[in-house]
Amino acid sequence: MSDKRPQVSFSNELGLRIMAESTTPAPISSSENALAVRRYLNELHDRITTAAERVETAKFRRDSWQRPEGGGGETRILCEGSVFERAGVSFSHVFGAKMPQSASNVRPEMADAPFEAMGLSLVFHPRNPYVPTTHCNVRFLVATPPNGPAHWWFGGGFDLTPYYPFDHDVLHWHRTARAACELFGPGVYGKYKEWCDRYFFLPHRNETRGVGGLFFDDFNENGFAHSFSFMRSVGDHFLPAYMPILERRMLEPWGERERNFQLYRRGRYVEFNLVCDRGTLFGLQSRGRTESILMSLPPLARWDYDWHPEPETPEARLYEQFLRPRDYLAEL
Amino acid sequence: MSDKRPQVSFSNELGLRIMAESTTPAPISSSENALAVRRYLNELHDRITTAAERVETAKFRRDSWQRPEGGGGETRILCEGSVFERAGVSFSHVFGAKMPQSASNVRPEMADAPFEAMGLSLVFHPRNPYVPTTHCNVRFLVATPPNGPAHWWFGGGFDLTPYYPFDHDVLHWHRTARAACELFGPGVYGKYKEWCDRYFFLPHRNETRGVGGLFFDDFNENGFAHSFSFMRSVGDHFLPAYMPILERRMLEPWGERERNFQLYRRGRYVEFNLVCDRGTLFGLQSRGRTESILMSLPPLARWDYDWHPEPETPEARLYEQFLRPRDYLAEL
Repeated sequence: MSDKRPQVSFSNELGLRIMAESTTPAPISSSENALAVRRYLNELHDRITTAAERVETAKFRRDSWQRPEGGGGETRILCEGSVFERAGVSFSHVFGAKMPQSASNVRPEMADAPFEAMGLSLVFHPRNPYVPTTHCNVRFLVATPPNGPAHWWFGGGFDLTPYYPFDHDVLHWHRTARAACELFGPGVYGKYKEWCDRYFFLPHRNETRGVGGLFFDDFNENGFAHSFSFMRSVGDHFLPAYMPILERRMLEPWGERERNFQLYRRGRYVEFNLVCDRGTLFGLQSRGRTESILMSLPPLARWDYDWHPEPETPEARLYEQFLRPRDYLAEL
Repeated sequence: MSDKRPQVSFSNELGLRIMAESTTPAPISSSENALAVRRYLNELHDRITTAAERVETAKFRRDSWQRPEGGGGETRILCEGSVFERAGVSFSHVFGAKMPQSASNVRPEMADAPFEAMGLSLVFHPRNPYVPTTHCNVRFLVATPPNGPAHWWFGGGFDLTPYYPFDHDVLHWHRTARAACELFGPGVYGKYKEWCDRYFFLPHRNETRGVGGLFFDDFNENGFAHSFSFMRSVGDHFLPAYMPILERRMLEPWGERERNFQLYRRGRYVEFNLVCDRGTLFGLQSRGRTESILMSLPPLARWDYDWHPEPETPEARLYEQFLRPRDYLAEL
């Protein structure tokens, strides 16, 4: 979390005009900087769906939608593909009169302020249980409390949820995450790697969701250009982090055993997203489009009562060696 | 919600000795009244699992468990049966130093007070898509804030979640619910039927979970004996409400279409339990046993992006005629 708050008001810094008095604030998207963020997100949207379609026989369906309270987005979704059982990549740009509680845990003074949020969010649920599920999100938020200066910040990250992890893949994932942070200071990877471990954690299972990656929020260090550049670096490193793992494992042979374990572990993914994830809660509380928010859920998931893996199986290896915070770059 | 609060302190009314100063309060279960509730819940536990096994080839597995913070329970679960894909019936009796927020929406002054809770909770997920899923819960809570009198109350109810509803079944269900309330006053069924409609509602889908039933909470009207009697009446009417529906529909032929719709609608059940259900939240927040709390989740569930039923199909009939609050007894 950044200690520095912008010293100038948001309207000075980004050259925006916010009608904080109005119940439906005017969108900030007319500012140069906000337009630049939007252009980047749209370009990344195209880049990611193109890369996914390159390994697939199916195509993304595109759904544009408007949000009655303000804003809208475009959800691209690919179902029952050859490689992806489901892949969803959603751009949204929404605004409203009251920022939901869930958006502002780190800035409680911003709850209920007029807000604007734009972001790109994706979840890939591959068919092959040897290919990890993955999630990536980059976002830009602005809150304009009536009795104080506006605040803007970036957030985002990416994380990996393998079923049958390969050390080589986990190393590659974290090396790429570290590379995304490298130009931004020596402690940056460690800080956001640890935040990711804390965020993607299921307290009721005492498990991390997967092997982590990066998670940052409330990021507005050293002005807009620097902050935006960090967000872009994270967004730009997602494909180089994930695609080599996907391509290396997507032809791995698998059977009913691996499928059952994948479905069982997908139940944890559902639990995390519906019980623990602030992003999902933000979407539902801000009356986002339910189908776009819940596109992150797997197409099929199972729950088995009190299931535990047999000792010394590949399934036990996931629990014993991976579902807790680890410094993979030092230990693998 | 009852307007009357007990005028005497809990320790007078139930003859209990609560060590409110201690971080781990002594269980109240030594009082005569609390013992009577516990005996009733244990007897109902046996009655329900026996009735379920009577129509089944599989048997319930029994798991006794202790909760490190205080108390424990017995979870009975039947998996992959001939009639039930999963049936779980769980008794729990837990206590702790701080009542979770989720337990006390109606009594905010009780949050963080030492508490004790006992209850029976069940979910049946039948295999045949023509048989509705059902849930029933009866519970007894006591909170002992250090700076005020103790409070006790009952809660509970039962609700029905059909995939392919039959009018006849829905009428029987609500007539039995009404019968459970009949001796307790003229407005009782209507009041708790409406509360059920409000409680088992998914705001992000704008749908009720199913066709409702009864839901009551914070019930302590006319002293302990009367309140306990109402809770027993609800508990006692569950089997007569559900079993005739189960037995009438369990041999209905079904195929892939019905199975897919059942799995899809089970996704809503997961969404309700993990996003909306205060009971699940209470369990997870009070560090209950995760496997017993989440035994309510279906064994298998699916999510389809932006799925809508074809007009004039049995699936559309569920959406059009049932997934909203209705006065079934007057309208069917």
